[in-house]
Amino acid sequence: MVVSLRLPSLTSLFSPITTTTTTANSLRRRSPAFIRRSRSYRFQSQQPPPPPLAARFSSSQGTAAAETASEEQRVDSNAKSRVNPDRDRVITPRSQDFNAWYLDVIANAELADYGPVRGTMVIRPYGYAIWEAIQEYLNVRFKETGHSNMYFPQFIPYSFIEKEASHVEGFSPELALVTIGGGKELEEKLVVRPTSETMVNHMFTQWIHSYRDLPLMVNQWVNVTRWEHRTKPFVRTLEFLWQEGHTAHATPEEAENEAMQMINVYTKFAYEQAAIPVIVGRKSRVETFAGASITYTIEAMMGDRKALQAGTSHNLGQNFSRAFETQFTDENGQRQHVWQTSWAISTRFVGGIIMTHGDDAGLMLPPRVAPIQVVIIPIWKKDDDKVGVLNAASSVKEVLQTAGVKVKLDDTDQRTPGWKFNFWEMKGVPLRIEIGPRDVSSGSVVISRRDIPGKQGKVFGISMEPSSLEAYVKDKLDEIQSALLEQATSFRDSNIVDVSSYDELKVAISQGKWARGPWSASDEDELKVKEETGATLRCFPFEQPQGNKTCLMTGNPAEEVAIFAKSY
Amino acid sequence: MVVSLRLPSLTSLFSPITTTTTTANSLRRRSPAFIRRSRSYRFQSQQPPPPPLAARFSSSQGTAAAETASEEQRVDSNAKSRVNPDRDRVITPRSQDFNAWYLDVIANAELADYGPVRGTMVIRPYGYAIWEAIQEYLNVRFKETGHSNMYFPQFIPYSFIEKEASHVEGFSPELALVTIGGGKELEEKLVVRPTSETMVNHMFTQWIHSYRDLPLMVNQWVNVTRWEHRTKPFVRTLEFLWQEGHTAHATPEEAENEAMQMINVYTKFAYEQAAIPVIVGRKSRVETFAGASITYTIEAMMGDRKALQAGTSHNLGQNFSRAFETQFTDENGQRQHVWQTSWAISTRFVGGIIMTHGDDAGLMLPPRVAPIQVVIIPIWKKDDDKVGVLNAASSVKEVLQTAGVKVKLDDTDQRTPGWKFNFWEMKGVPLRIEIGPRDVSSGSVVISRRDIPGKQGKVFGISMEPSSLEAYVKDKLDEIQSALLEQATSFRDSNIVDVSSYDELKVAISQGKWARGPWSASDEDELKVKEETGATLRCFPFEQPQGNKTCLMTGNPAEEVAIFAKSY
Repeated sequence: MVVSLRLPSLTSLFSPITTTTTTANSLRRRSPAFIRRSRSYRFQSQQPPPPPLAARFSSSQGTAAAETASEEQRVDSNAKSRVNPDRDRVITPRSQDFNAWYLDVIANAELADYGPVRGTMVIRPYGYAIWEAIQEYLNVRFKETGHSNMYFPQFIPYSFIEKEASHVEGFSPELALVTIGGGKELEEKLVVRPTSETMVNHMFTQWIHSYRDLPLMVNQWVNVTRWEHRTKPFVRTLEFLWQEGHTAHATPEEAENEAMQMINVYTKFAYEQAAIPVIVGRKSRVETFAGASITYTIEAMMGDRKALQAGTSHNLGQNFSRAFETQFTDENGQRQHVWQTSWAISTRFVGGIIMTHGDDAGLMLPPRVAPIQVVIIPIWKKDDDKVGVLNAASSVKEVLQTAGVKVKLDDTDQRTPGWKFNFWEMKGVPLRIEIGPRDVSSGSVVISRRDIPGKQGKVFGISMEPSSLEAYVKDKLDEIQSALLEQATSFRDSNIVDVSSYDELKVAISQGKWARGPWSASDEDELKVKEETGATLRCFPFEQPQGNKTCLMTGNPAEEVAIFAKSY
Repeated sequence: MVVSLRLPSLTSLFSPITTTTTTANSLRRRSPAFIRRSRSYRFQSQQPPPPPLAARFSSSQGTAAAETASEEQRVDSNAKSRVNPDRDRVITPRSQDFNAWYLDVIANAELADYGPVRGTMVIRPYGYAIWEAIQEYLNVRFKETGHSNMYFPQFIPYSFIEKEASHVEGFSPELALVTIGGGKELEEKLVVRPTSETMVNHMFTQWIHSYRDLPLMVNQWVNVTRWEHRTKPFVRTLEFLWQEGHTAHATPEEAENEAMQMINVYTKFAYEQAAIPVIVGRKSRVETFAGASITYTIEAMMGDRKALQAGTSHNLGQNFSRAFETQFTDENGQRQHVWQTSWAISTRFVGGIIMTHGDDAGLMLPPRVAPIQVVIIPIWKKDDDKVGVLNAASSVKEVLQTAGVKVKLDDTDQRTPGWKFNFWEMKGVPLRIEIGPRDVSSGSVVISRRDIPGKQGKVFGISMEPSSLEAYVKDKLDEIQSALLEQATSFRDSNIVDVSSYDELKVAISQGKWARGPWSASDEDELKVKEETGATLRCFPFEQPQGNKTCLMTGNPAEEVAIFAKSY
């Protein structure tokens, strides 16, 4: 039976804004971020499951009209009135337009929505729950590694930002400034925290006196503001959420070890929790954080093969401690400037998860960061069957919940099972359990994997017996976790090209791939690559090939290979 | 042996600022919030424990000099240079100057520190850990009661604030405004979130369409900014942390039930976790939240008998939904405005915990919100004993940690046991375990309660045997939790006076007590009480006496008693 199923979809939520000023032809596709489900699909329980979303969406994509809106830096409170909430919408296929797909997924899966101020984002419950999973994991690791949470105020005196020369250069174009407080013009403008190194140093000077006060290792989970002009939900927003760790040490070695320790915590998180096979390495001078001596980074390859800087850890050296006179008395009674680090991961990581694992059917979440790991769909045709099916579904839910699995029972009458299959697939839930009347009789369930479409990912006759069901589900979740990492790793590896000349680099970049090659050229050469190819030096990876190397640009000896790629 | 022990102490961190403009005689006592410990105390392990801090501090209090500082609304980045970090400081006795005691405790226990911008606060790890305990408990309750966490942007278009008439009236004097972003003057000023009802409604209009979308129940844990002129750490700061819940419902009954449910969650939290016997009730019209139809409140009596509004839950009626046109289509196809609630608890609650339970020796924390529930102090004189004592201390720590107790082993060589006793008492840790060489031989430990000073609170010969030690410790922690609540309850009850006339009310208030009496007078009369006595109508408590009542002010019939008190 071929059914004309039309699932909810939306056009873009955000789209890149290319200029800071108003241009007549600047376009932005707008939409509300709720889902309309005006058609329902009559599910026949013994039929095969409906085809993947992509097939059904490919014919109707592109019907959602783009809307013209001026792109001033202004408040836009009329978004709602410009869209028709009752119009059916579709998810653009990923293969066709990656950016449109990304924005459609965010809207359809209800991960985020537009804020009224240009470039701001509302993180909706389902998107926020992914962030909570990230927080939960990292918070434990931060504490294990000796850090305490605290809170620094978000208003920073403007003069602080000016104290560290490269810091002010990096951040001053992006600042939001409070100039009026309590009805009065302020004597000194206040910066809304873009990052807290200056505030941290101001406070550290008051807490650090002797070597006994070191190391001082703290972290905060907060909002930060950067007046970005090209915004994209999660990836780059005017305001975002992050954690920022800040530490002070007595020696440069300790600071270096700390910076390395934290980039390793991030790497482990990326691999083991988010199933993202990041490349960990060191930034070039050009790409180093404004105010840092060394920046370590994890770079992730998205589904469109662009690089996403997913987390950074900075060895700040004494740059801020000299600017702020953050000193301690060492064991010999000498005054010394402390050695510092800072490190951060932000809500951008949620964007990285979406863009690494999603497919044409929507989101695909690694079990360890999924707000819902298992969804249970009860299926009945006759009212006689309803009670038995719902009872069985409830007890399966109970079993899994008790076992610590994040499980959702979708028992609403308002939607058909087929609609629910597609909906929870689109929401990226790793496992689906189906329970119909025949399953109840046989004491078994049907389990489908999100990452393996169709019949191949579907197993019938899994026993409902609690301990075996629990074991099966946990096992499958682990398998999915590994499978997603493997898939992303092989995708990554097949899209990194070793190059030995600038020409080869240009070819690789023009094919959308990452280019890896020996590099010892100048900052100017690095900027030339960016201008001519659009690719930036993502990092000097920690994992380096053996042997002599010759710089791809200059032919001079090189100590390391670097990776170049286009990026978000 | 009488020892001249001088413990760390500091003068006030913050102090009330009485005017918004600069006045020549406005004083603020300033200090860095670290602890100097320049003298140490040679502890003799078989001596009785040192006397409580108060006795030793009472003679030396007042030595810390107040410093004059201008109170402009300006950035103050010179705080550090005006204090001498090497000077010994003392905690002002609570009985002598409650406010100075409060500020000294915050500084000495390293709960918070001044931010560089007037009225802002840095929440230090120990203070933040109390907030984390509050978050952990409430977050579970919020989810159990059907709410999801999410995040709304903090920048609110100025025009939003103006939409609800009483809301703008209440908040406009307190706003911080961003007028410059990315180097440009903004077309519309942005308000830094003082609360989010307007933002929430703007978004709810896009998510709510039919009755099927209701109820919509969300919460966020965020920072908020209110340009307060009289600030006090935790109690009232320019920026603070809170959770704000926001819900929308189809009927007024549901909204009312939700507002009541959440004030009850807060009440339960206050009693069972924070051991604060709050009075729960309804605010008068005068004191109702700007934009609400009804405000429910929990009012806590602090150690100086002032009232602290510790949490509120608002039934917003249709005030915001009418201003923002937040509508839904009901089951009959009619468009209706939603009925809403909002509710919040903030970092102010940490101040409430300090001011409810502290004593002259410093902080006293209820076990359920204490970052450290048990501190272990190993005691040795001879080096021969050290290893045995430390091993025993470590295994006791292990036992308790495994049992889920928050335990700290203070095994530093740099301080004497006596110093440590006082330090952790001042930090409010509920239980102390002492382990010396004789304890190791006998396989037992000494346990002291923070809430019962001296020998009375000290029990010798508690077995180290894991299961019995665990049971003993957990039992004692429960006892302390109950004891703190009982003590606070009897203090509260002995300081509430039933009054039947305005004269009696005035007497009660002048004695520093709370006055409870029948009230049906006008808003003007209520304001008159405030002007003449300094007391405000804290609430109409839910618990009402039976029988006919006559308004204490007018002699007219009254339906309810109200509570009047001076407040923070």
